[in-house]
Amino acid sequence: MPLLNVKVMEGVFTPTQKQEMIRKLTDTMVSIEGENLRAVTWVVIDEVKSADWGIGGNSLTTDDVKALAAGEG
Amino acid sequence: MPLLNVKVMEGVFTPTQKQEMIRKLTDTMVSIEGENLRAVTWVVIDEVKSADWGIGGNSLTTDDVKALAAGEG
Amino acid sequence: MPLLNVKVMEGVFTPTQKQEMIRKLTDTMVSIEGENLRAVTWVVIDEVKSADWGIGGNSLTTDDVKALAAGEG
Amino acid sequence: MPLLNVKVMEGVFTPTQKQEMIRKLTDTMVSIEGENLRAVTWVVIDEVKSADWGIGGNSLTTDDVKALAAGEG
Amino acid sequence: MPLLNVKVMEGVFTPTQKQEMIRKLTDTMVSIEGENLRAVTWVVIDEVKSADWGIGGNSLTTDDVKALAAGEG
Amino acid sequence: MPLLNVKVMEGVFTPTQKQEMIRKLTDTMVSIEGENLRAVTWVVIDEVKSADWGIGGNSLTTDDVKALAAGEG
Repeated sequence: MPLLNVKVMEGVFTPTQKQEMIRKLTDTMVSIEGENLRAVTWVVIDEVKSADWGIGGNSLTTDDVKALAAGEG
Repeated sequence: MPLLNVKVMEGVFTPTQKQEMIRKLTDTMVSIEGENLRAVTWVVIDEVKSADWGIGGNSLTTDDVKALAAGEG
Repeated sequence: MPLLNVKVMEGVFTPTQKQEMIRKLTDTMVSIEGENLRAVTWVVIDEVKSADWGIGGNSLTTDDVKALAAGEG
Repeated sequence: MPLLNVKVMEGVFTPTQKQEMIRKLTDTMVSIEGENLRAVTWVVIDEVKSADWGIGGNSLTTDDVKALAAGEG
Repeated sequence: MPLLNVKVMEGVFTPTQKQEMIRKLTDTMVSIEGENLRAVTWVVIDEVKSADWGIGGNSLTTDDVKALAAGEG
Repeated sequence: MPLLNVKVMEGVFTPTQKQEMIRKLTDTMVSIEGENLRAVTWVVIDEVKSADWGIGGNSLTTDDVKALAAGEG
């Protein structure tokens, strides 16, 4: 039953990292809800276009997020 | 007033099938809510990238969903 | 796999009508996607508080929507 | 803390207009909530594919929305 | 056509402030998209329960947000 | 930047479990994205009313989900 929707910016995560998100976020939910709910635990990832995400009114690009992740933000 | 958001995986449904969804889901809502609310009944379809949908921690691709729909899943 | 999120205003539909929505919207999706996807077709209803829905800048209350549905809007 | 999700149809707004949306919608929220919440005010824009938006059961294309905006709808 | 979904924490804004949000956010969108799209501009407010919102892993309560807004956060 | 929206059924999880979700899901995301993005990782929980969630057309109540979690479903 739990449904996780994850919004990330396109180009920040690789397909491998997104599969890792799906697997690990599900395992995290299952650690709380119990193994019996695993089959009805869904994770859906939405990608938002570069610059279509604003914090405090400032648009962030994919490069901005990568720089932030690298500690250069 | 009712707002339906439909998330599907990209590449599973044709444009014609998506138009059919919009028309038929609206008619279904109208059969419950009454004809007077038709004009304020919205259906918005979001497409999720192949592999960005997980059930029980396993990523599903467009091909996985097509196989499942064909009874090969 | 398809996920339908239905936003309605609280107090407009009875619990029976909401069960009818879940059943009929699922049947409608299955008529397009095929019976094999029924088990992975989810419908989730969210209720929005009266007056927390605006069209063209005007807030609608539960009574407004009921009047509209009754043809008095 | 406030989170604004804006769904628009792809191709209707330019990148410049979307940046304007992010900036102005944030300023509008801040005018109500106060300047101290600006840093935790997020705006995320989702684009919906042409024809994947239905009003009253009719699909709208990007051209339909542009015509409507131009007063030809 | 544009659809704004605004998530706020319950108890932070009064009904009057939420009506102001609906009116002003719509006017802001109309200032960008043009007056012809006003009638198809929707704003829907969702309220999240106190403590059900986390930033950086820390839950925020309604009181936390009020303190932050008051410059005491 | 990542935004996690978690939909659960009301009454299934305690406030303590929901705080645990916020903390652990954030830690899981940070293990993939890196510590520098922690401050911009948000988790928002939405609760859906009992019976307002359908799988395959059948409404689930809070008791149904608890029974399923307990292995009695």
